[in-house]
Amino acid sequence: MSDLFVEPSVTWNRKLHEDMKVKDWIEPSFGKFPAAVDVVLTGIPLSRSSISASAASEYPDFFRKAWHLFTTYSIDENVDFRDMKVVDVGDVKMHGTNILQCHANIEEAMKNVLSECPNSFYVQIGGDHSITAPIVRAFQEHTNKRIGILQFDTHLDLRATDSDGPTNGTPIRQLLDAGVVRGEDVYNIGLHGFYNAPSLIRAADHYGVNRITLKDFRRKGASVLIAEVMAELATKVDIVYVTVDMDVLDITYAPGVPASTPGGMRTDELFDLLFEVGKYEHVGGMDFVCLDPHRDSREQQTVKSGVYAFLQVMLSRFMHVKK
Amino acid sequence: MSDLFVEPSVTWNRKLHEDMKVKDWIEPSFGKFPAAVDVVLTGIPLSRSSISASAASEYPDFFRKAWHLFTTYSIDENVDFRDMKVVDVGDVKMHGTNILQCHANIEEAMKNVLSECPNSFYVQIGGDHSITAPIVRAFQEHTNKRIGILQFDTHLDLRATDSDGPTNGTPIRQLLDAGVVRGEDVYNIGLHGFYNAPSLIRAADHYGVNRITLKDFRRKGASVLIAEVMAELATKVDIVYVTVDMDVLDITYAPGVPASTPGGMRTDELFDLLFEVGKYEHVGGMDFVCLDPHRDSREQQTVKSGVYAFLQVMLSRFMHVKK
Amino acid sequence: MSDLFVEPSVTWNRKLHEDMKVKDWIEPSFGKFPAAVDVVLTGIPLSRSSISASAASEYPDFFRKAWHLFTTYSIDENVDFRDMKVVDVGDVKMHGTNILQCHANIEEAMKNVLSECPNSFYVQIGGDHSITAPIVRAFQEHTNKRIGILQFDTHLDLRATDSDGPTNGTPIRQLLDAGVVRGEDVYNIGLHGFYNAPSLIRAADHYGVNRITLKDFRRKGASVLIAEVMAELATKVDIVYVTVDMDVLDITYAPGVPASTPGGMRTDELFDLLFEVGKYEHVGGMDFVCLDPHRDSREQQTVKSGVYAFLQVMLSRFMHVKK
Amino acid sequence: MSDLFVEPSVTWNRKLHEDMKVKDWIEPSFGKFPAAVDVVLTGIPLSRSSISASAASEYPDFFRKAWHLFTTYSIDENVDFRDMKVVDVGDVKMHGTNILQCHANIEEAMKNVLSECPNSFYVQIGGDHSITAPIVRAFQEHTNKRIGILQFDTHLDLRATDSDGPTNGTPIRQLLDAGVVRGEDVYNIGLHGFYNAPSLIRAADHYGVNRITLKDFRRKGASVLIAEVMAELATKVDIVYVTVDMDVLDITYAPGVPASTPGGMRTDELFDLLFEVGKYEHVGGMDFVCLDPHRDSREQQTVKSGVYAFLQVMLSRFMHVKK
Amino acid sequence: MSDLFVEPSVTWNRKLHEDMKVKDWIEPSFGKFPAAVDVVLTGIPLSRSSISASAASEYPDFFRKAWHLFTTYSIDENVDFRDMKVVDVGDVKMHGTNILQCHANIEEAMKNVLSECPNSFYVQIGGDHSITAPIVRAFQEHTNKRIGILQFDTHLDLRATDSDGPTNGTPIRQLLDAGVVRGEDVYNIGLHGFYNAPSLIRAADHYGVNRITLKDFRRKGASVLIAEVMAELATKVDIVYVTVDMDVLDITYAPGVPASTPGGMRTDELFDLLFEVGKYEHVGGMDFVCLDPHRDSREQQTVKSGVYAFLQVMLSRFMHVKK
Amino acid sequence: MSDLFVEPSVTWNRKLHEDMKVKDWIEPSFGKFPAAVDVVLTGIPLSRSSISASAASEYPDFFRKAWHLFTTYSIDENVDFRDMKVVDVGDVKMHGTNILQCHANIEEAMKNVLSECPNSFYVQIGGDHSITAPIVRAFQEHTNKRIGILQFDTHLDLRATDSDGPTNGTPIRQLLDAGVVRGEDVYNIGLHGFYNAPSLIRAADHYGVNRITLKDFRRKGASVLIAEVMAELATKVDIVYVTVDMDVLDITYAPGVPASTPGGMRTDELFDLLFEVGKYEHVGGMDFVCLDPHRDSREQQTVKSGVYAFLQVMLSRFMHVKK
Repeated sequence: MSDLFVEPSVTWNRKLHEDMKVKDWIEPSFGKFPAAVDVVLTGIPLSRSSISASAASEYPDFFRKAWHLFTTYSIDENVDFRDMKVVDVGDVKMHGTNILQCHANIEEAMKNVLSECPNSFYVQIGGDHSITAPIVRAFQEHTNKRIGILQFDTHLDLRATDSDGPTNGTPIRQLLDAGVVRGEDVYNIGLHGFYNAPSLIRAADHYGVNRITLKDFRRKGASVLIAEVMAELATKVDIVYVTVDMDVLDITYAPGVPASTPGGMRTDELFDLLFEVGKYEHVGGMDFVCLDPHRDSREQQTVKSGVYAFLQVMLSRFMHVKK
Repeated sequence: MSDLFVEPSVTWNRKLHEDMKVKDWIEPSFGKFPAAVDVVLTGIPLSRSSISASAASEYPDFFRKAWHLFTTYSIDENVDFRDMKVVDVGDVKMHGTNILQCHANIEEAMKNVLSECPNSFYVQIGGDHSITAPIVRAFQEHTNKRIGILQFDTHLDLRATDSDGPTNGTPIRQLLDAGVVRGEDVYNIGLHGFYNAPSLIRAADHYGVNRITLKDFRRKGASVLIAEVMAELATKVDIVYVTVDMDVLDITYAPGVPASTPGGMRTDELFDLLFEVGKYEHVGGMDFVCLDPHRDSREQQTVKSGVYAFLQVMLSRFMHVKK
Repeated sequence: MSDLFVEPSVTWNRKLHEDMKVKDWIEPSFGKFPAAVDVVLTGIPLSRSSISASAASEYPDFFRKAWHLFTTYSIDENVDFRDMKVVDVGDVKMHGTNILQCHANIEEAMKNVLSECPNSFYVQIGGDHSITAPIVRAFQEHTNKRIGILQFDTHLDLRATDSDGPTNGTPIRQLLDAGVVRGEDVYNIGLHGFYNAPSLIRAADHYGVNRITLKDFRRKGASVLIAEVMAELATKVDIVYVTVDMDVLDITYAPGVPASTPGGMRTDELFDLLFEVGKYEHVGGMDFVCLDPHRDSREQQTVKSGVYAFLQVMLSRFMHVKK
Repeated sequence: MSDLFVEPSVTWNRKLHEDMKVKDWIEPSFGKFPAAVDVVLTGIPLSRSSISASAASEYPDFFRKAWHLFTTYSIDENVDFRDMKVVDVGDVKMHGTNILQCHANIEEAMKNVLSECPNSFYVQIGGDHSITAPIVRAFQEHTNKRIGILQFDTHLDLRATDSDGPTNGTPIRQLLDAGVVRGEDVYNIGLHGFYNAPSLIRAADHYGVNRITLKDFRRKGASVLIAEVMAELATKVDIVYVTVDMDVLDITYAPGVPASTPGGMRTDELFDLLFEVGKYEHVGGMDFVCLDPHRDSREQQTVKSGVYAFLQVMLSRFMHVKK
Repeated sequence: MSDLFVEPSVTWNRKLHEDMKVKDWIEPSFGKFPAAVDVVLTGIPLSRSSISASAASEYPDFFRKAWHLFTTYSIDENVDFRDMKVVDVGDVKMHGTNILQCHANIEEAMKNVLSECPNSFYVQIGGDHSITAPIVRAFQEHTNKRIGILQFDTHLDLRATDSDGPTNGTPIRQLLDAGVVRGEDVYNIGLHGFYNAPSLIRAADHYGVNRITLKDFRRKGASVLIAEVMAELATKVDIVYVTVDMDVLDITYAPGVPASTPGGMRTDELFDLLFEVGKYEHVGGMDFVCLDPHRDSREQQTVKSGVYAFLQVMLSRFMHVKK
Repeated sequence: MSDLFVEPSVTWNRKLHEDMKVKDWIEPSFGKFPAAVDVVLTGIPLSRSSISASAASEYPDFFRKAWHLFTTYSIDENVDFRDMKVVDVGDVKMHGTNILQCHANIEEAMKNVLSECPNSFYVQIGGDHSITAPIVRAFQEHTNKRIGILQFDTHLDLRATDSDGPTNGTPIRQLLDAGVVRGEDVYNIGLHGFYNAPSLIRAADHYGVNRITLKDFRRKGASVLIAEVMAELATKVDIVYVTVDMDVLDITYAPGVPASTPGGMRTDELFDLLFEVGKYEHVGGMDFVCLDPHRDSREQQTVKSGVYAFLQVMLSRFMHVKK
């Protein structure tokens, strides 16, 4: 195993039996990269790069600890997706004070994963939103294809890096400025309220980033909207990368996301959107970012919603892509 | 009064005046069973039988303490239901370590209530979901009629009793296995997500339990769905017993239910469903279970929602059945 | 400046730059009344008059402290309203134990504001609901016109003052009894549940107050309902005063309002309603009351929703009235 | 019973048996004043008069609700004080907006109690500290004797009433200015830290109030200090009134007191001091003030400490005075 | 391995390196009983038997999860006790509804441990206090020696089993009534306040149980007191069993113990006492009970104190007994 | 003003009157360095360098916001220190992702302060413990004198920088390795428990760092211990720098310090120690670090204790050094 990865400190005692819990389904593979898997899961515990103080670096651990609460069977769809082979390759190794090194590690580690586990679907668990830039750079370098981005976010994340470097406010801008992704290939769903500065709107206009507000989404519904966006993207890009900033959720539903706001998305809306996203084969990878478990409610509702969101993609992908 | 009942430790100073508070409306009747009442309310403070640790045994007390916040007038329907006669006969006596004895007490106490207060509507306040089995057994033995079950729940509660006995995961299974209720007469509304194990689905299939997911409900709406279910049940059974596992609610709305989950029902949806349920005369009794007040938010939102849910049934029954 | 006003204890270091934060947009004007402004903002830190203990007197401070989280640009409408000139004239001075004196100060201070800053829109930040009575009295005396009231509330606030004086349960009743406002000119939107006593319904009938329940609103939608109400009011009154009791919100969305309840309004519904309200030029002023920041969640979701609600009015008024 | 008193809204079902719980020991006597009792307990639910927002008005209710956790037996002293006859005469009636009326009611109600239940010991449960002034005025008028005050407090409470009236910062000053009590007869124990303004120190000097800091107390110990203070007082006054502002406690021990601070007293220190206080027969009455149960921790540690503090006095008085 | 034991669901990835964390030091041994160990650790996740609802059954899990925060080096004593061999044999298997079966399992499992791992020191992690009875029965049957009990507790735990069976209020009484332990051989340290009913005092007198109040302890100090008690016990018994009911701690220090109270022990006092206890070779085993992690503070201060308490014993035993 | 400093975002409206609040006493001086001041206060909002996620970067803001709760008068000493001239020069500017740049900024900014405000006492408000290294480097370079360190801490902070760079676990080691400070000149007070790894003990031995455990301190008392340490230091160094890691406090007293532990120091002990520290003129500067206000209790007890700790030094220095 590459020394860019570390094992999580706690692991489940897996027990395979008739009723499959998520904790028993996802296979730890910390010492080697398995070749033929459907999904590779990578933890990216970095949040020093967050503009405001965040413990999103703790999310990969909390995400794993909540697996025992879920099964691999969806009663909504009457589908058991246990035959989807998912491996957890552990966490990318981070440095305590060198943030650029952390980003370099992420990029390198993702290239390793892409090389060693080809033809898979790649799910990254952040960490803050700064991780999306090195991940997408790795995708682009590895595949050398045109990559589109489908972003669920309350914010545009188009800040320039000149004053504060590659913080969690900059990932999309970094990719645009470096020519890794084109503005027209970025679709942001879930924008709402009074949380984006006019200068970022001008940046979005300049780069041609597509903005779909929460109200736009509610007028169309999840399946129509995602179908439209995917159809547009299909004419332009080879691979779609999906990035879910959990701050797209309403503050009532997601107290564990420091930047969640009033007027945001409900969890059931996000679950519906992700079910639609899971239908499209050219979606090549995705991440979930900015969930700070230290801020969560006593009952850890946001962490649980994070696992649910991940499972919606697994379920849908199993139903529509894998089989 | 039967020695199977105990008084609640705290009682309201009731004051009858022009504006009727729920605390002044529900009559305590701890020393005797009144004969002609519209509704009998019984507290069942048992939660040692819960698989995961729970203080749902505290709910009858918290339920009563929240009565002072509500009136007997619904502004939605412009109806005052103060003429509905409701008595609170207190709590069924429990044993500190003998859970089977507790279940026997519940069954015996319910038979007392059914005998002493005939032709009433019976509302039981749990406690965990294990209480539904002895309650329904009492109904069946007392009436000797075919009983259907309308269940609001995130889970099927069809676990077998062989490994852990009659826990809160088993009540429906107990009734099916004992032939008290038939699988085709059980309707479960509100199922969703990744919370039911495949083996329980197979059990549901085996017994023929009717499963209506949260998405199914949302597609039909409360009044159509309940009308359909009640129509089907009317062709098969004599009496419908309704059991409301409060974990059917979303974790955001019901932090005080240990097993509430993301992706669950909103409180307003539950209130609408219960209003519909209240319209049907052949609904003979009901319970509310699995609400743990020690887990609730500071403002006790879940306890308050529990009282609201109960009042929706009272309101609707007054409008449609009593008059 | 009148000695009826005091400065807030903490002020922002305002910084005018390309991206306008609300904290940099609203101009403090504690020493003088500016003549030509679009909106005057007045803090009214009174909650000793609340029937149940409340720290709503802290809300003006918390409201101001949360401004830094918002910009003057709405991504929903793609509109920047920074050209709306808003001044904050500080807080009305209160007395520590003489509540009637506090109410007199509010009335006098509002007359000052109305005289010194004519042709503006007046937003008052409470405090509890008792403040609406002296504010509307000031409006009526100053303008000598017929004033209608559009109230968003879970309660009617029609208690008589004979037993406990001008508490937060009485403002509408005070205005009706004093002939300041007519019952037919009062429209209450958002009533729901079991929270209003029958005697108050009779009072509402007696005075002819218009009641629109939350269910009525949901059946019609925000734009139709507000258009209807405003059309009716336009035939009767010269000026509409809007009072938003934040307890209209559901307890899940507004833990920081002591009287919020299950079954209430969602924040997005309130935001939509206020956007509609902002379209009507004859709306002359408004207040937000009964938000107790000490009860709010750790992430201060209710305070943030309060700022959002205020900005919706600013946005809409800028789009529809100012330009 | 005087119409100045109201019943608490909730009462315990008292059960007299071998093991005496405090809830079963204290006799409710809401309709009449019993003549021969050892202790009269009066609730004074007023906190509108608090400078900063407070729900100390809720303390009498929470105090009573916590009685079931305590017995009448002290294992420290191996003494059961159940033979001390204590009656709870309910709460003094308050007005919703007229604070001076509230203070007048307190004074009048206390005179009633003193007349109707002579030769007793009088314990008042606040409420904020403003209640001490009318209580002591009632004592002085009723007895026409020289009264000393032993105050446990972090603050001097010597503010003048000219700007804000009789708030909770003024009770001692009110009594001094009105000549009800002399400065030399006031002893304040527990002062510490940076919480008293220099002007109040000058006031204390002017009136001759005796200041004993927390450090002074710790150097001497409870029994020596109280013996000294009581000896001094015995040479000057006829009756000692003890007022316990719970903000004397450290913020770690008393999160439920809005004005508790770092550097304050530990609960065990307060319990020791109150045990000493209970030894002196010329202590004629006492109050506990400024405990806001809405601010308390989930486990209600401050309310429980409040009951413990009260019981220490009962225990000691039973051992030293009653027998 | 006996089928009376189950593995914990989560295990640490142990890493042996220069700096020994407790998580890397304690050896999991879930499949077999190692013969030559210094200490055997057994989890006993039972709290259905608690009189009031408790999740103390979760403590063994939380206890293990907190090990990573501690090292095997005490800076107070400048001693590293890593050479003490400690194994964790997992949790005793419990039944979901048959509490007597749970107690039988504990007794049987402890006999297994005592047989398979002779000449060790046995630490049991509860669970509620009911577990002490079957543990001590196992000790007595296995060793056939006279056993003394040193109990740290706020309560006597001498309730009879006739009304509610073997709850957590009864363990000492069970042992006395069954003749397993003699009253004179029981020493209870830490009793305080108003929390023990007179009937239990009479029971203590009847059985001759030795009562040492918290005040007694404070007067003597930890080392003198424990030396005296151990000297007395040494004249009477062969083995001393120590049971630590964490409710002996003050509510401020131990919010995570449902029955902790004001006026209790500080954590540093308990740590000192346990250091003294660790010096005595004839102490053969001990348990820690009644810590409910669901009630703990956000920072889990009580769980952390529980681990600290355990380590104090390990440290002292290593220094005084093992070497 | 140097561009290395930024203004705090919120400032108090200062009001100079008879009773001096700390908020009105400390002078903001964000645009220039005043020459003749007694104390310079500098905010250092850096905590990206913390090993575990921390929002200690928020402490300077919270520290300032709590000033209004304190006066400049100590009732313990009967001393008003308002004549001590203290200026707040604002916060050192930080970079969003370049931590080494942040440390360089701190060092440079401190050199500015030392040059521009000579002959003052310098108090730095962190931030995490990594800030101490650049601060002391600035002191050493500016003064070119031998500097000793008096550290209050639960940990030694002697980790090497080779694996994770200059984190908050390394400041003392950095200074020793760079020869800025000698091991024999470092005194660490407050060490306790099982929180220091053996390898760090060996490092402490290697460098000759002086270790004084919490138990050592408790045996000697604050005044004797500090006198001894200061006497020793006086024979060796020219200037003493004091660094207070707030994690020296017990977790019960300091929930707002992520690394606070059971078995730690009480706040009153820390206050006493700091009073002693303030007596020594050769103490040239100090910092307070690792207090994370986002973790604090609702009543912000840890932030308030932080202000109290600072004021103890101001008080004592005014009494013993300034006059």
